[in-house]
Amino acid sequence: MKKLINNPADVLAESLRGVALAHPELSVDHETQVITRATPKAQGKVAVVSGGGSGHEPLHGGYVGVGMLDAAVAGEVFTSPTPDRVQAATKAVDRGAGVLHIVKNYTGDVLNFEMAAELAAMEGIDVGTVIVDDDVAVQDSLYTAGRRGVGLTVLLEKLVGAAAEEGQDLAAVVELAQRIVGQGRSMGMALTSCTVPAAGKPTFDLPDDQMEIGIGIHGEPGRHREPLAPASEIARQLVEPILADLDAAGPAIVMLNGMGGSPLIELYLMYGEVVPLLEKAGVQIARNLVGDYITSLDMAGCSLTVLKADDELLRLWDAPVNTPGLRWGV
Amino acid sequence: MKKLINNPADVLAESLRGVALAHPELSVDHETQVITRATPKAQGKVAVVSGGGSGHEPLHGGYVGVGMLDAAVAGEVFTSPTPDRVQAATKAVDRGAGVLHIVKNYTGDVLNFEMAAELAAMEGIDVGTVIVDDDVAVQDSLYTAGRRGVGLTVLLEKLVGAAAEEGQDLAAVVELAQRIVGQGRSMGMALTSCTVPAAGKPTFDLPDDQMEIGIGIHGEPGRHREPLAPASEIARQLVEPILADLDAAGPAIVMLNGMGGSPLIELYLMYGEVVPLLEKAGVQIARNLVGDYITSLDMAGCSLTVLKADDELLRLWDAPVNTPGLRWGV
Repeated sequence: MKKLINNPADVLAESLRGVALAHPELSVDHETQVITRATPKAQGKVAVVSGGGSGHEPLHGGYVGVGMLDAAVAGEVFTSPTPDRVQAATKAVDRGAGVLHIVKNYTGDVLNFEMAAELAAMEGIDVGTVIVDDDVAVQDSLYTAGRRGVGLTVLLEKLVGAAAEEGQDLAAVVELAQRIVGQGRSMGMALTSCTVPAAGKPTFDLPDDQMEIGIGIHGEPGRHREPLAPASEIARQLVEPILADLDAAGPAIVMLNGMGGSPLIELYLMYGEVVPLLEKAGVQIARNLVGDYITSLDMAGCSLTVLKADDELLRLWDAPVNTPGLRWGV
Repeated sequence: MKKLINNPADVLAESLRGVALAHPELSVDHETQVITRATPKAQGKVAVVSGGGSGHEPLHGGYVGVGMLDAAVAGEVFTSPTPDRVQAATKAVDRGAGVLHIVKNYTGDVLNFEMAAELAAMEGIDVGTVIVDDDVAVQDSLYTAGRRGVGLTVLLEKLVGAAAEEGQDLAAVVELAQRIVGQGRSMGMALTSCTVPAAGKPTFDLPDDQMEIGIGIHGEPGRHREPLAPASEIARQLVEPILADLDAAGPAIVMLNGMGGSPLIELYLMYGEVVPLLEKAGVQIARNLVGDYITSLDMAGCSLTVLKADDELLRLWDAPVNTPGLRWGV
């Protein structure tokens, strides 16, 4: 295992120390491993909390800041954070108008956020929850009942964060989040496995001449393996399953995301391959992201996310956001 | 070779196609492989041009935009762009106040930019040049007489871009650039080799239990190889050579940069390791960047850049910048 780490057991704790040093605008509680804004939002606004296993940076900690999340709860690598930590985050950021939990659909996350919501309710905090399940690759998976939550989470955190920032109430923010989940889909692929520090070896074996289509963000199995193919063919295998599941004609926000180990020159090349395929199907790309936004440690590969958009979503997209991972308008 | 590409010979051209699709605020000339702002800056302001071999994204194309570069000339992967292309970029962005060429110190780049400056001069365009040679690892190298130009290039492009944007004249911008080169240093290391698409195999062999200290951004040899070490020891080996060469006590801008294949969770961990070492030497980190800013394709590893700063440099750093790779204040 070749990694820039000390003891594998300390990776998250030590990485959070670096986050705290790099970002004085964030506040890191090293005990609960919760990242919040150093300056909380105004009283009376809905707070937005997300979290899950680490290893997907910049998600979620890199999306804490004005216009996006109020708190991110960092579990150990690929491990759900415990309910008490989610509750601590929820309590820390509640400004009296309720808290939205954004949960990627993995069984551990769903259970732990549910329990945290119950604990928060006992303290009089209103919690709304949205479960993100945008991955069209597989119906059920190793860690999931139903579809996995992947790239759409990034777009949802941005859009819902903007709605909360402008003062929409909890019911409106929850409804917006549900609507986004209903109209966004993702599909990913891997050229290589990731290596979890505590495991010390690749999560799976992928021969030099093979790739995995429909990979999960924890290296969990996708749809199938096949021989390495050109980018044009990979693009087809990402676009087609999304379009088979979503009538995406019309305006859209599109993200071509890197899994962590693929350089930007390749991600732009892939973006150049997916755009004509989407446009041929009537998708009008109104906004886009190309880069590493939800990763799987050092995995080489990419994923595509397509979210149908309308004027309201584009307005929320363009609203100011000031986080380490996404920043504009400020 | 596992890459998201089609034909290895087409990587740059196809990646630029993706850049053009993703960034309507940029203009890509696919013939000369020059990236410019879609909306040129006002007449009478100094223009800033950089470029060099591709494979270091987001450098340089990702730094074209308001407050930073006016044009980036993209050579093939790890290959200097020809003088006629540099000249074309220079001519395209000149607004009557002269053009600054930012050149990383590699023999090919230096010669080609020099020739381009002569060609531009024949057309009546004033060109100033700054050669960036911040890498303390080696005195001469495979492609270099004198030190290599690496991470400082990113900080310099930001700072000089801000000065040009606010209307400083060419002499002042050149003097600023020289001053920055005089007070910035970098040091890098690699856990793995990069793989140049056209070569199809890793540039060098680095055994599973070895790392290379002082690596260049093209995979050219560094100072030495040694057994894999913990992040704390790697940090020491990056910080000490910089401090041995630069009296860095006082305010500074610091960048912990990823080489392309190392995930963000590790880069933050490394940042957490270098900060105490720098602070112990009296460095006061006033601003920082942590992430992939100047890469070496898919190489795993990182580099550290330290630039001594003063109020003037910090003011230019904080000025608005709006590029795909760096964005704030807008």
